[in-house]
Amino acid sequence: MGETHEARRSRLGALVAERDAGALLVTRLVNVRYLTGLDSSRAALLVPADGPAVLATDGRYAGMAARVCPELEVVVDRQVAAALAARAAADGHRRLGFEAHDVTVELHAELARQADIELTPLGRPVEELRQVKDEEEIALLREACAITDRAFEAVLPRIRAGVTERAVAIALERAMVDLGAEAPAFASIVASGPNGAVPHHHPGGRELQPGDLVTMDFGARYGGYHADMTRTVAIGEPAGWQRDVYDLVRRAQAAGIAAAVPGAGTKDVDAAARDVIAAAGHGDAFVHGLGHGVGLEIHEAPLMGYDKTGKLMDRVPITAEPGIYLTGRGGVRIEDTFVVRADGPELLTTTTKDLLVL
Amino acid sequence: MGETHEARRSRLGALVAERDAGALLVTRLVNVRYLTGLDSSRAALLVPADGPAVLATDGRYAGMAARVCPELEVVVDRQVAAALAARAAADGHRRLGFEAHDVTVELHAELARQADIELTPLGRPVEELRQVKDEEEIALLREACAITDRAFEAVLPRIRAGVTERAVAIALERAMVDLGAEAPAFASIVASGPNGAVPHHHPGGRELQPGDLVTMDFGARYGGYHADMTRTVAIGEPAGWQRDVYDLVRRAQAAGIAAAVPGAGTKDVDAAARDVIAAAGHGDAFVHGLGHGVGLEIHEAPLMGYDKTGKLMDRVPITAEPGIYLTGRGGVRIEDTFVVRADGPELLTTTTKDLLVL
Repeated sequence: MGETHEARRSRLGALVAERDAGALLVTRLVNVRYLTGLDSSRAALLVPADGPAVLATDGRYAGMAARVCPELEVVVDRQVAAALAARAAADGHRRLGFEAHDVTVELHAELARQADIELTPLGRPVEELRQVKDEEEIALLREACAITDRAFEAVLPRIRAGVTERAVAIALERAMVDLGAEAPAFASIVASGPNGAVPHHHPGGRELQPGDLVTMDFGARYGGYHADMTRTVAIGEPAGWQRDVYDLVRRAQAAGIAAAVPGAGTKDVDAAARDVIAAAGHGDAFVHGLGHGVGLEIHEAPLMGYDKTGKLMDRVPITAEPGIYLTGRGGVRIEDTFVVRADGPELLTTTTKDLLVL
Repeated sequence: MGETHEARRSRLGALVAERDAGALLVTRLVNVRYLTGLDSSRAALLVPADGPAVLATDGRYAGMAARVCPELEVVVDRQVAAALAARAAADGHRRLGFEAHDVTVELHAELARQADIELTPLGRPVEELRQVKDEEEIALLREACAITDRAFEAVLPRIRAGVTERAVAIALERAMVDLGAEAPAFASIVASGPNGAVPHHHPGGRELQPGDLVTMDFGARYGGYHADMTRTVAIGEPAGWQRDVYDLVRRAQAAGIAAAVPGAGTKDVDAAARDVIAAAGHGDAFVHGLGHGVGLEIHEAPLMGYDKTGKLMDRVPITAEPGIYLTGRGGVRIEDTFVVRADGPELLTTTTKDLLVL
């Protein structure tokens, strides 16, 4: 079901060959992890167009590397990228591809000092490979989302007037860990009342009050894979405008999910949701893109936005998270993680989207 | 006691002028936070050699920016760096400094398309400013460290044979949050028995056993500032070699802290500790640098290592964390966070360094 790290490296090698390079120097840590299984804060990987890859890491991770990827040759050096550039030169990989979206200008200058190599940007081949998940990756994501759903259910009885945003955030995060998450997938957002108008509000000491809408954006990480879900609930009977905005966001989200089929343009998927909100006169209040890929990162390719290019593919897990933010009044966001599939979207987060009145 | 963000920007402007640039484009998010107070995942700041700075962020953070730094002009644009490069050109800052250690080759190419500016690397002026903390920053760090100490004390009765590494890590992290931390400063390390030989071991399902040394590396984040402490304890009466290694690391750490005076070379501070370990024949088993600065980042300048340059200054908070790692047997690391002061080091983490036998 799952692809081995070696198979991933071999597919990458084929892309490197297609792009006319002798090897690719992979410096983005999450990409190194995808290709080797090693989760470290200092590592790089040299992937030749043909032949075995070479890993570099520092002394802190040498033992871990030997255990996690025993099939790989490991160079132990703190200057992981420079060590592999030297290795590429020694192995005769004259045209050395690099990740221009990760290598800084400073590191590039350092690598360029290595004689006998010509540094060439190769685009984002590893991110391209990472978009489409194998079924083992999807199973990890499914479990991450199931934990997220269960945590919400477990914490729901405690979401009441008088409880602070921060207490709700902490309760959600602890519940996820107690239910098997490695850790929260990101810093949870709990935004109540007027704070709901701030999409990335940091949960604070404000107590939930009757009349609030409360937006909770959270998720579990499991096996390295990131779930992402948002639900908005009402504390006490909601006002008419609150119900209207909620229903609008819910319809927009449904339209976005329905449009997310293999082959659809990411821009068009965004538009499917955005048009619903714009038609109701709230276009300006939806201040971000519709969603993003999830996997080894909480935000990864593909991105869905009005200014994005690219098309969705089969087996790509993404989020759909439209929101309406009304300064001074509050906001609503509803988000699910789901997998784009040829036979229709597979929803991974399954908590109800009926407006809960607590 | 504390310096205003405006004062920081003005000191930075002076450095920009000294380095012959019209303005600096600050893209490192932690540097933007240091200079504005805004904690966001997408922002950049244009700091002219002379005159007011301009902030750019996207729609999700516009409201937060208006609240946190009302004195600043805010450009709302998703392409934060490009928007400010255009602004620099419009304002006639022909020589535009940038952070070459943060700007990727890809972003640099995009910025270079902006007519009428000449991009010039200016080194790391913001990191230079950030090294020396004002007393308000040190007070936040002191509280972060106090929370870390208290959490260890609270969890100590639960560190016993039969408990898993992961359970200890979770207990420490929850205790820190319960005691007032915003969050853990980093993913806690709990490494027991042979796992102690892996400096950055991920805590797992292994149960603590009689005869183990257990290394716990953890810390609290408070007001954005990061504490870092490591303690190694024994489960049951330690063997002779365990006591010997422990005492050696403890002596090495004391030597490192004693050497950390204003004006000392970071290399020499590392050597003060390393020499103690090397003299006892364990030089190869101390596989990392002695320590690092702490502040808005868990690892920041200055770094103490055998290959480092630079000198310590008054009011620079750093860690000293020598370790000995013996493959298959286990390890010891002891770490404190302290402030380099003219009148002697101010220890911020104060948990006992006597070998606790639990």
